[in-house]
Amino acid sequence: MSCRKIDAKKAAEFLKENDDFYILTHSNPDGDTVGSGYALNAVLKAMGKRSAVLCGDPIPSKLKVLESDESICFEPKTIVAVDIADERLLGSLKERFSGKIDLCIDHHGSNNEYAKMLYLEADSASCCECVFEVVKLLGARVTPKIASALYLGMATDTGCFKYSSTTPRTHRMAAELMEQGADFDGINRSFFDTKSKARLELERAVLDSVEYLYGGRCAAVTITRDMIESTGCEQTDLDSVSSLPREIEGVEVGVTIKEQQSGAYRVSLRTHEPYDASEIGKAFGGGGHKRAAGCEFKCSLSDARAALFSKIGEVLEETK
Amino acid sequence: MSCRKIDAKKAAEFLKENDDFYILTHSNPDGDTVGSGYALNAVLKAMGKRSAVLCGDPIPSKLKVLESDESICFEPKTIVAVDIADERLLGSLKERFSGKIDLCIDHHGSNNEYAKMLYLEADSASCCECVFEVVKLLGARVTPKIASALYLGMATDTGCFKYSSTTPRTHRMAAELMEQGADFDGINRSFFDTKSKARLELERAVLDSVEYLYGGRCAAVTITRDMIESTGCEQTDLDSVSSLPREIEGVEVGVTIKEQQSGAYRVSLRTHEPYDASEIGKAFGGGGHKRAAGCEFKCSLSDARAALFSKIGEVLEETK
Repeated sequence: MSCRKIDAKKAAEFLKENDDFYILTHSNPDGDTVGSGYALNAVLKAMGKRSAVLCGDPIPSKLKVLESDESICFEPKTIVAVDIADERLLGSLKERFSGKIDLCIDHHGSNNEYAKMLYLEADSASCCECVFEVVKLLGARVTPKIASALYLGMATDTGCFKYSSTTPRTHRMAAELMEQGADFDGINRSFFDTKSKARLELERAVLDSVEYLYGGRCAAVTITRDMIESTGCEQTDLDSVSSLPREIEGVEVGVTIKEQQSGAYRVSLRTHEPYDASEIGKAFGGGGHKRAAGCEFKCSLSDARAALFSKIGEVLEETK
Repeated sequence: MSCRKIDAKKAAEFLKENDDFYILTHSNPDGDTVGSGYALNAVLKAMGKRSAVLCGDPIPSKLKVLESDESICFEPKTIVAVDIADERLLGSLKERFSGKIDLCIDHHGSNNEYAKMLYLEADSASCCECVFEVVKLLGARVTPKIASALYLGMATDTGCFKYSSTTPRTHRMAAELMEQGADFDGINRSFFDTKSKARLELERAVLDSVEYLYGGRCAAVTITRDMIESTGCEQTDLDSVSSLPREIEGVEVGVTIKEQQSGAYRVSLRTHEPYDASEIGKAFGGGGHKRAAGCEFKCSLSDARAALFSKIGEVLEETK
């Protein structure tokens, strides 16, 4: 199947001309996919269309403020995917929707062009920026809830405007969304300024478990099921912990290995320039961005570590 | 002495008309006072004037990139203070310059009007925003170094655009400064994404020492000289730790008590809306902003704690 690359204007036209939308978000949902999905859904409904947001996984409680709560009582005619680089990230929705995505709106350079049409901005810090471009072209009124949804995605995908992916446009869009009534303080407080006691406990355990490799240029932490269960952490707590190893002075590649309920090991990779996290992720069937990527291992922890650390060593050696 | 309130335009005119500037920054210098001072100094020099930045304390190594390194070889005719709410914050410069400040540029609502002229924007998230307004009115070229200095102040005083003090203007100015070549990635990496191993050690010690009061609505940590010396932390490490207690879920007032070399106890207060940190600080001769304030105790730790926690209890009780 060939994928047609389109721009924001063409994406807006397509949305205007069609109806009965299912908007798909990625499994293990984050602020950007949920914010993108919620905002687009709300705008399409305000235009008098039928629309619903779907996710293959439960929405974490922190993101629930944005979840649309109605039950879905129509069959879709148009399938849109937001912030999904690969159909595998549809998770449990994959079987039903694989090969049927009409439009994908995304910002992952690694997008593998599975949709019939793709509006991709690989330089955008968040998918919500792409969605906001489309929303503007649709001439939709940006309600405070829509503004909050879009702000949520921009803020969470940039570590609150901290990551190098942030652009002047990100800041200008944030300013606009604040003026449209985005609850930026509530969002920032919840995502960047609040640690549950469970998360605090996990952080202590993580700080105790840091290993240094390659002369301190790589730091790795391993989060076992036992640590997760004994602290009572949620998925969102685990996600935010993934940035810790890279924050240590001198560390170029930060690694967080999380034991899954399935017994597999999910790996989060965070790098500083010029080290390419997605190159490491891709070597093990994963992917992502240059500074943040991931992959999964279905072998023993020691085999996973050996393969992973050897690849990281290569990347640290090659790129200098 | 009466203090004349002026706007950015009048401040720019005053700077144009005068020469031989000493720009004073506050003691225990932070990114905002140093960024404001450096940017103004560079702009005045580019206009062909003589100017120098002074600080009563050594500039922490993290902020040294911005320090102007020339020795000062002229006597001042014009004294400007940036980000200084009270002459006491001049520290060791107080004796020499008290009562002699011609112009103060500030964003602290608690500014006590000690200068002959005051350009105050109490709603501004950082002093650097006020300085940027003046720089624009001066028609100065914003070099990448000036852009970096101004970005530094905006980013550090807002926790990287996270605090409720952030406004749409803050974001728009950040976008402009990025376009003028501000090294936003280097600054963010250094201030928000890098923890020295010393800081990591301190954080572990701090996480171990959290006390909860008033049913978890107040969290307090005490950093002793012993903790500081055993971890080898710098002042900037200590400053950033001050935000930790407030980050704990359910905490409205976060308290960090730091033992000083003098034996005094410096207290950092961080609150969530609607609790007024400056009210608590003021009760003990300190001050600051609504969400971030401080004070100092020159008594025993137990007396300091008793007085402080009793006042916090009152504030938590009154404001509901």
